[in-house]
Amino acid sequence: MFAAESLVRTLINQGVEVCFTNPGTSEMHMVAALDRVEGMKSVLCLFEGVATGAADGYARMAGKPACTLLHLGPGVGNGLANLHNARRAFAPVVNIVGDHAVAHAALDAPLTSDVAGVCAPMSRWVGTVRTASEVSTLAVEAVRQSYGPERGVASLILPADCAWSDQEPDVIETVDLPPLRPVSDASIEAAVKALSAAKSPILFLGNDACLEEGLEAAARIAAASGARLFMDTFVPRIARGHGRVSPKRLSYLGSEAIQELAGCDLLLIAGTKAPVAFFAYPGERGEFTPDGAQTLTLGGPADDIIGAMNALAERLGPAEPVPAPERSQMPKIFPDEPLNPGYVGISMSRHMPENSVLCDDATTSGMGVFPWTGAGPKHDWLCLTGGAIGAGMPQAVGAALACPDRQVFALCGDGAAAYTLQALWTQARENLNIINIVFANHSYLVLNFELARVGAGEPGPAAQQMLSLDNPKMDWVKLAEGFGVPARCARTAGEFDAALHAAVKAGGPQVIVAEI
Amino acid sequence: MFAAESLVRTLINQGVEVCFTNPGTSEMHMVAALDRVEGMKSVLCLFEGVATGAADGYARMAGKPACTLLHLGPGVGNGLANLHNARRAFAPVVNIVGDHAVAHAALDAPLTSDVAGVCAPMSRWVGTVRTASEVSTLAVEAVRQSYGPERGVASLILPADCAWSDQEPDVIETVDLPPLRPVSDASIEAAVKALSAAKSPILFLGNDACLEEGLEAAARIAAASGARLFMDTFVPRIARGHGRVSPKRLSYLGSEAIQELAGCDLLLIAGTKAPVAFFAYPGERGEFTPDGAQTLTLGGPADDIIGAMNALAERLGPAEPVPAPERSQMPKIFPDEPLNPGYVGISMSRHMPENSVLCDDATTSGMGVFPWTGAGPKHDWLCLTGGAIGAGMPQAVGAALACPDRQVFALCGDGAAAYTLQALWTQARENLNIINIVFANHSYLVLNFELARVGAGEPGPAAQQMLSLDNPKMDWVKLAEGFGVPARCARTAGEFDAALHAAVKAGGPQVIVAEI
Repeated sequence: MFAAESLVRTLINQGVEVCFTNPGTSEMHMVAALDRVEGMKSVLCLFEGVATGAADGYARMAGKPACTLLHLGPGVGNGLANLHNARRAFAPVVNIVGDHAVAHAALDAPLTSDVAGVCAPMSRWVGTVRTASEVSTLAVEAVRQSYGPERGVASLILPADCAWSDQEPDVIETVDLPPLRPVSDASIEAAVKALSAAKSPILFLGNDACLEEGLEAAARIAAASGARLFMDTFVPRIARGHGRVSPKRLSYLGSEAIQELAGCDLLLIAGTKAPVAFFAYPGERGEFTPDGAQTLTLGGPADDIIGAMNALAERLGPAEPVPAPERSQMPKIFPDEPLNPGYVGISMSRHMPENSVLCDDATTSGMGVFPWTGAGPKHDWLCLTGGAIGAGMPQAVGAALACPDRQVFALCGDGAAAYTLQALWTQARENLNIINIVFANHSYLVLNFELARVGAGEPGPAAQQMLSLDNPKMDWVKLAEGFGVPARCARTAGEFDAALHAAVKAGGPQVIVAEI
Repeated sequence: MFAAESLVRTLINQGVEVCFTNPGTSEMHMVAALDRVEGMKSVLCLFEGVATGAADGYARMAGKPACTLLHLGPGVGNGLANLHNARRAFAPVVNIVGDHAVAHAALDAPLTSDVAGVCAPMSRWVGTVRTASEVSTLAVEAVRQSYGPERGVASLILPADCAWSDQEPDVIETVDLPPLRPVSDASIEAAVKALSAAKSPILFLGNDACLEEGLEAAARIAAASGARLFMDTFVPRIARGHGRVSPKRLSYLGSEAIQELAGCDLLLIAGTKAPVAFFAYPGERGEFTPDGAQTLTLGGPADDIIGAMNALAERLGPAEPVPAPERSQMPKIFPDEPLNPGYVGISMSRHMPENSVLCDDATTSGMGVFPWTGAGPKHDWLCLTGGAIGAGMPQAVGAALACPDRQVFALCGDGAAAYTLQALWTQARENLNIINIVFANHSYLVLNFELARVGAGEPGPAAQQMLSLDNPKMDWVKLAEGFGVPARCARTAGEFDAALHAAVKAGGPQVIVAEI
């Protein structure tokens, strides 16, 4: 028996059921423990960014953490980008990183590095095991810290000798985990007062406020107060689809976002913070709140915002019942038209099963798909919260494991997909119900816009080469098949519609290359 | 004109000629500057780990830094593993990381993170530009810091507004860069005394001591003193091949390494430090120096070890001239035999052109190739200095750009190759003379050994699954072709020999899948 087994059993007792692994020598006793202990599923990933992205997707859909198992500083380094996205999604993750045995670290062997230093920038808590006796208590603390109250990444560093010790500490039974912070009555009263005084209020939603119950409360608040509903541009998980409340998603483009919020005299913030520009641009403002408008925070990401919104709705009193939105007429598909993101969105609405999960890592193309799926079946839309591309295919792995009965989609730009395409292998290995749509525009298209926006001038040939992915063009059918996932290509609206229909019927992991 | 242009011109004046890029919005003015300024080649990479690995390979072969261009905290996170390898190779790298405009950082936009914190663990210096006026001075400081005297990674953080400012600072002309530290006469005298007193001395070489001139000096010292020659297990660049001095490479396995050094009473260290175990194992010792042996350091990685060794050889006086080693008889290839790493090594010796560069990222298989190439044509062998797999294909990119007239090989385990396979795209785009040999054992084979070595017991089915890559098997021919690189598969010694011969003749990037 090894201390690592106590760690695994303790994690299971706290509800951690899945471990996304990319282990090395220093994690071999964790591998052995995962082998021996029932109740934790191990999912091997070929690259650490797949493991951390999967943990993010899992947390968003399961509402609780999975753990990772990574290999020293370079291993967690490879995982940082998707830990950043998880952090920005307030997704709980227990990030377990093996390190050299305590005495070995002093020898400065080749893999020695400052593991805690690598973890820190993307973690809300970093704990380092010093002796095997601490293994269980620090495991509980890691889970607790991942719950916050502001949920996020808790990194636990586990030296090899602390894992292999036969001084096995007691397994810790289930403990209470931190709840979201309740919002005070005073805050709710302040919101009531501000809403009644405002002429043109906006209720600005993010994070949990965009889950189904939050949106329903938001609609009641809107009906009672006349507030317009907006949400963040990038939300961890949006409940969408026909019959659901659909706030306006704030535009990515600053000029448009400022226009959208213009005239508002109260921005009541629910679950997030006041909107800011994604990037700075010369001479453009970074804060989107209109001058002179009052900003009032009902609650942030660490608060029980759904509880607060329900209380606020009740306090505002019954309004006219909110009529269920009528089903919009879905535009026709002209099958011979060249494919574009809009057609992808229309086909998604036609063919995706109820309760699908869409992981959006498609920047420009994702923006084109989004408007069209709102009238389709109910689904959850997961945004690229941290802006670190390469999230979609890994997130889909985690979402599919969290929700085995739901169809999962990864919407990926070709540039983004190239970061973490190894996720396809795990999708094949676990036979996950994931349809990956790769938007092949053979370009970092967003950067072509951005180059102009930042005023860097007309791109010359060298700059064009740095934004273009067409020399050579990636062959995504071969790349997918290389990792064991069947793939097909669609060039017209009709080809895509047929391919999507077939893929949903077939089940299992698949890639559709959307040539746009 | 933007400040970014001053930065690029200043870097060029310090001899930085290549930039490995994976830019985003915050780096658009650097992209524009790279476009406008002559003298810096931009090489686009699809993933940051490719950019940093390429910078490592470039530095090892060019003896000077390339720069990178990465995108905020997540971008440099993706590059950390290969920066770790570069750091452990004492390879100079100027790691340029774009960040939000200074005022924008306070808004905590989605991509905001502690960029300096992400850089720090793998950098010997981190500098952050605060105003455009600092751009040129900090660029020079970054280059200077990459030269050390202990060479390594210097990270320069460049906020977008400091790049786009039209307050263009003066371009700085060529400055003197720090030389290696001279070794004192006293140290050389101490070595003379210790060698003459020792009964069984070993001269233990690493880093620059394994370059051609270092090895020649080592041979003269050995001839004059009777010292045996050993080198580190993982050396940044070893000059090898027929006619060259060939020290014994210390075994990776601790039990063998201890055996190899047994009986030595003086370990004279040249360019490195006393050998230690790569990992800790229960009950095994971590330091390999025999008990009672004296350890004396002639010089470490920051020292002019070649100068010191030449001085020591001269001080020891002329020995019998060292006879040129006889060419070993190369074993025959039995063409129908199943392929193994030894056969790959034999074929490499037969077909690789003089002055080839071999980037070894093949752990178990690389160990099997190594002994067979020593009798082949002269070549440089680049080891995985930091133990972070995924180095080989990216390093090959950098080596090929540093040495366009030389044939480059990447030797990659299939597990390792899966980390950074996006490097193949850059190889195709730049039409580099790189033959990638992927050893397809469909397993993290080294971990099967390690699991037993650490005493974690017999692997059960879950553990076996975590070390095995055979479900599904990756199809490396398709993966290579997907990134635009032609590929073929070899299953027997004869097939591999023919494939290698053809690949060398054909030129350009290629993949040979060695099914072993």
